[in-house]
Amino acid sequence: MRYQLYYWPTIQGRGEFIRLALEEAQVPYDDVARAKDGVDKLMEKMAQSATPPYAPPFLVAGEQTIGQVANILQFIGANHGLAPRNAAGRLWVNQLQLTIADMVAEVHDTHHPIAVSLTYEQQSAAAKKRAAAFVAERIPKYLDYFEGVLEKAGEGGYFLGRKVTYADLSMFQLIEGLGYAFPKAMASVAAAYPRLLQLREQVASRPHIAAYLQSKRRIPFSEEGIFRHYAALDK
Amino acid sequence: MRYQLYYWPTIQGRGEFIRLALEEAQVPYDDVARAKDGVDKLMEKMAQSATPPYAPPFLVAGEQTIGQVANILQFIGANHGLAPRNAAGRLWVNQLQLTIADMVAEVHDTHHPIAVSLTYEQQSAAAKKRAAAFVAERIPKYLDYFEGVLEKAGEGGYFLGRKVTYADLSMFQLIEGLGYAFPKAMASVAAAYPRLLQLREQVASRPHIAAYLQSKRRIPFSEEGIFRHYAALDK
Repeated sequence: MRYQLYYWPTIQGRGEFIRLALEEAQVPYDDVARAKDGVDKLMEKMAQSATPPYAPPFLVAGEQTIGQVANILQFIGANHGLAPRNAAGRLWVNQLQLTIADMVAEVHDTHHPIAVSLTYEQQSAAAKKRAAAFVAERIPKYLDYFEGVLEKAGEGGYFLGRKVTYADLSMFQLIEGLGYAFPKAMASVAAAYPRLLQLREQVASRPHIAAYLQSKRRIPFSEEGIFRHYAALDK
Repeated sequence: MRYQLYYWPTIQGRGEFIRLALEEAQVPYDDVARAKDGVDKLMEKMAQSATPPYAPPFLVAGEQTIGQVANILQFIGANHGLAPRNAAGRLWVNQLQLTIADMVAEVHDTHHPIAVSLTYEQQSAAAKKRAAAFVAERIPKYLDYFEGVLEKAGEGGYFLGRKVTYADLSMFQLIEGLGYAFPKAMASVAAAYPRLLQLREQVASRPHIAAYLQSKRRIPFSEEGIFRHYAALDK
């Protein structure tokens, strides 16, 4: 079955976690909003669904409309070999994904600590404070955790060892995004996270992911998405 | 099987979403950290697990350790009758739960917009701005969405109609918490959300939930948890 992904057409944003999973699993999909009148179609579909999403991204698979990144990834993971077959393994991968999602939400709030309705410039003073705390406290706390999970997983370099799951793809994206947004801060802590950097390399060099990253389907990072580079927010 | 819930002993916090599901399903459980030396046991267990949680709450079910609220609720829902039997229905309930979780995280950040390592008093100026935006923009956006889901669900008053799920229990807790934290703001918009208030009533009057709410197992709201009442942050 061909799927339809609905997400804002000009940013990686939260949609990118879905794109990476679809690309790795080689599932045929339309990135609907990137075609003509795509955003109109997105708004229309979002309002009509029997299981309406609160916000993009959402995935349409036949009669089903599925919202929320971690939820969409559960669906893709279960149906396209990017999650374990057993229930306990699936819960573990979902748990990792939700922890990645928590960190992603915190990255977003470094540049929007007050309101999503204001621009970054309108809240840059608070953003500077929040970003300083994020760099000093939250990056180490989260990355220590993920590095520890990889250490326990043993050989293979992925969260579950040798078998890649959607949580590994999302972790790749999170590391990429952190490196884009906070290059100095990330450079200063990189030595402490050899396993995370190895995971990043492994995912980037997977053939389907490598091809995707070099294609036009991969939208560049920018200051419109979740991961934004503002020098004032970096270390 | 008797479960062990691990969560901070003096607050409702994120653990409360788990407690409500366990109470409704009448699953026997120990609220481990509320007993003697409980916090030590929590810290020890968190470090030892093969599937370590990033943070409490986490649930231990025999050999399994499960972290992240929405993930724990998937497990309880599937095994104790608080989620549909079919995969599509389960994804939909998980989607609702993740949207509730997003709003809960935003509530937390109204009193901690800069850093979790600072007290509210140390960031109250930014908190006042963030809370004003939350009350003016985010409460209506989220509650309009949830009210719309209930409208589409038709008779029965729950998100899936007549059958209660863990997402209904979590929505109850979210409405209770919003009413505690933002009494004036919630009073001013209550008339717009008759279905949500009806869901709140229905959940509160379910026999197992009603008994729980009157028991000592229900910890009161306070200014240590996620939902905090600071008059300066209300409308």
